[in-house]
Amino acid sequence: MSDTNLPRRLFAEWLGTAFLLATVVGSGIMGERLAGGNVAIALLGNTLATGAILVVLILIFGPISGAHFNPAVTLSFTMQGALPRREAALYMLVQVVGGLVGVLAAHIMFEETLLQVSTKARIGPAQWFAEFVATFGLVATILGCLRFNPSAVPYAVGLFISAGYWFTASTSFANPAVTLARAWSDTFSGIRPADAPAFIVAQFLGAIVVTLVFRWLLGAAEDRSKPAPEPSRKAAPEA
Amino acid sequence: MSDTNLPRRLFAEWLGTAFLLATVVGSGIMGERLAGGNVAIALLGNTLATGAILVVLILIFGPISGAHFNPAVTLSFTMQGALPRREAALYMLVQVVGGLVGVLAAHIMFEETLLQVSTKARIGPAQWFAEFVATFGLVATILGCLRFNPSAVPYAVGLFISAGYWFTASTSFANPAVTLARAWSDTFSGIRPADAPAFIVAQFLGAIVVTLVFRWLLGAAEDRSKPAPEPSRKAAPEA
Amino acid sequence: MSDTNLPRRLFAEWLGTAFLLATVVGSGIMGERLAGGNVAIALLGNTLATGAILVVLILIFGPISGAHFNPAVTLSFTMQGALPRREAALYMLVQVVGGLVGVLAAHIMFEETLLQVSTKARIGPAQWFAEFVATFGLVATILGCLRFNPSAVPYAVGLFISAGYWFTASTSFANPAVTLARAWSDTFSGIRPADAPAFIVAQFLGAIVVTLVFRWLLGAAEDRSKPAPEPSRKAAPEA
Amino acid sequence: MSDTNLPRRLFAEWLGTAFLLATVVGSGIMGERLAGGNVAIALLGNTLATGAILVVLILIFGPISGAHFNPAVTLSFTMQGALPRREAALYMLVQVVGGLVGVLAAHIMFEETLLQVSTKARIGPAQWFAEFVATFGLVATILGCLRFNPSAVPYAVGLFISAGYWFTASTSFANPAVTLARAWSDTFSGIRPADAPAFIVAQFLGAIVVTLVFRWLLGAAEDRSKPAPEPSRKAAPEA
Repeated sequence: MSDTNLPRRLFAEWLGTAFLLATVVGSGIMGERLAGGNVAIALLGNTLATGAILVVLILIFGPISGAHFNPAVTLSFTMQGALPRREAALYMLVQVVGGLVGVLAAHIMFEETLLQVSTKARIGPAQWFAEFVATFGLVATILGCLRFNPSAVPYAVGLFISAGYWFTASTSFANPAVTLARAWSDTFSGIRPADAPAFIVAQFLGAIVVTLVFRWLLGAAEDRSKPAPEPSRKAAPEA
Repeated sequence: MSDTNLPRRLFAEWLGTAFLLATVVGSGIMGERLAGGNVAIALLGNTLATGAILVVLILIFGPISGAHFNPAVTLSFTMQGALPRREAALYMLVQVVGGLVGVLAAHIMFEETLLQVSTKARIGPAQWFAEFVATFGLVATILGCLRFNPSAVPYAVGLFISAGYWFTASTSFANPAVTLARAWSDTFSGIRPADAPAFIVAQFLGAIVVTLVFRWLLGAAEDRSKPAPEPSRKAAPEA
Repeated sequence: MSDTNLPRRLFAEWLGTAFLLATVVGSGIMGERLAGGNVAIALLGNTLATGAILVVLILIFGPISGAHFNPAVTLSFTMQGALPRREAALYMLVQVVGGLVGVLAAHIMFEETLLQVSTKARIGPAQWFAEFVATFGLVATILGCLRFNPSAVPYAVGLFISAGYWFTASTSFANPAVTLARAWSDTFSGIRPADAPAFIVAQFLGAIVVTLVFRWLLGAAEDRSKPAPEPSRKAAPEA
Repeated sequence: MSDTNLPRRLFAEWLGTAFLLATVVGSGIMGERLAGGNVAIALLGNTLATGAILVVLILIFGPISGAHFNPAVTLSFTMQGALPRREAALYMLVQVVGGLVGVLAAHIMFEETLLQVSTKARIGPAQWFAEFVATFGLVATILGCLRFNPSAVPYAVGLFISAGYWFTASTSFANPAVTLARAWSDTFSGIRPADAPAFIVAQFLGAIVVTLVFRWLLGAAEDRSKPAPEPSRKAAPEA
């Protein structure tokens, strides 16, 4: 892993997270404007767009930066020794900045006020438990696929989040950078800034617990022929 | 197949079935709450989430436990000699427990009463025939893909159940553990406990008949170069 | 291609076409019953189920019989010399019988009158042109993928028909066996028996024209290393 | 790249763009007619059909012509030296003609007046910025996948446009040939001819900027073992 490529990897994390948030927020606005008050129909459009763009972004940026776009995922890889702490901090920084840029891009495209603060309450133990489950599941999806089906990661992540939009009561933010960014949009997908910290705690907790559980669960296979997860995750340009 | 890995395999069956039921029940609640009374729209969200999570869960847990999550599938593999009877019994036990845990998790996330008993009637020969067709088709999907396209199993199972939610009048439970679990949720996806036994009989019958039919249908190819279904189904950690 | 396997191949064509029609008709009934009068929502469910089951059925039965399920596809392969005329006739026969069985299964599952005759008019040059376009596109999908991406055939066919349900005014029957079968269901997906023959003529015409066009279009690549379409289409058990 | 195959390549670009536009316009008409005034439901059908047909068309025609169907994509490949200028001009010409033919085919199938001029206003900086983002993203999808996951291009493009229909305020035309063609349909997917030029400028700008950015981003990997994008993009028949 040469430092020469760190700028490219950070750029990929930044641009990918920006596209992810532009999609989450933009498709939420589109869904709400067109759905005539039927929230389930708005959520169908929101789900379709988010799941689809995740597949695309991981296909494109996975070989460059690992396509985390998510501080909880970056934390999990750092716990596994796949990313130095200094790089992890930079990853998280550009993810947060990228997320905010994506929200602003969505606001520009849909002629919304550029700077907004969400007023949508998302609070309570049920929501926090949902975020724990969502992030546990998201990181389980990544770790499990990387171990046995690495080429399926982009599709699996897109599908997990598509399911999560419907089966978790919080619609699976599952991502601290996404949570911070969505606090700045008073539209369909927003969250009150005051409610963000608890979401983020639940997300990091979910990522930590699943990383420990899957260390045991996937442990028995560690000495097999297949390559370890990390290289295949952010491989090609570095190596 | 070493016993050392049996706890991991049972854990995978338990956790996978729990996630499956959390998705089936959770997305049913989400769909019903948001769809404004249009049941087809609720079912679209329910279908999307269930099909997506099945792909993900089979990608993650398939290499560990075979990703049955379903006593009817476990019965079919046992009939084929791929699983000792004692292990099959343990598989079925953790599937049933996992399913119930998944229902409870959905109830917590959506702030429903924790313990419920379904009051939704699902009864009559048409429903039972539908469950026979659904389980016949589900197990046919698994056996057919394992024989010629083993890497397609996760996608094929997710797609079959997505279709089954719409083309079978019973919305394709196709799974005794799912049936038992859904009896404990008085929400969109519930089934009256009194109606569960007949569903389960129809499901096991479907699994038995398709296993016999496909033994003949796929028999001609048995001496070919491709590996037999079992190893590729729950291979990697054991071997 | 040994005659020993012909019964298995015919059984696969029969069972696959039965499942296809059970899905087309069953999901049409489910969609119409639940959609509260919004035909687009009913068609979404119908599309989802049909596209999904096509992928599954071609994955399962493709290696056994070629997974035609469609006399127009069988005609195209016969024109290309990939199927003897006698076998082609048997294929078409079991496809038609299988289609009818699938319709009856759907009627039983949904407690509809077993024997029905459709009263839905589907007539006129615009509809016939749509069926020509639909079948041209379907067979183009199969021939094009078989030439360069044979493993993508199941997915491509499912996706083409999903698109066709929306972009052709006739909702892409694109299949004479499907057309005959749907004449026997007076539900969402039916077609008046009197309107079937013109549909079937348009479908065979589309198949013939695209087979000739693609003979030229794909001709330049005929001497390449990749295997010719036929073997990979109904290969494994015979060979 | 022999001239012998140029006619086949141009035919593939022509036919593919025609099918693409028949789908965009046809499924827009179908959606609008059936959705009972709920635009989000119409857009769901439009999205499903467009995304699906893109996957299919790129699978079929990718190995023949590269499956551009889009002057902005052709421009990007020409900038990269993968296509001589003369051939690029011919590509763009047949794409524009094919698009118009596709619109006419949709009008015939749906019994619309054959020749129409759109009256739907799509104007203003927000829309132009959306088209810049959409084309930047589309070409990024193609360049990124070609570099590391060439076999995923068909799926990634279909998914990107599916997302783009919802997250860009302009519903992601992202294609000058599509823009010109849709000016000739006064239906769901139309655009006023007067509004087309600004869309096209934004699209070409997006394609140029992303080509330059990705030259830097993917540059570090240029000397690797994987083949360069061009051959795998329009390979088989020429070479």
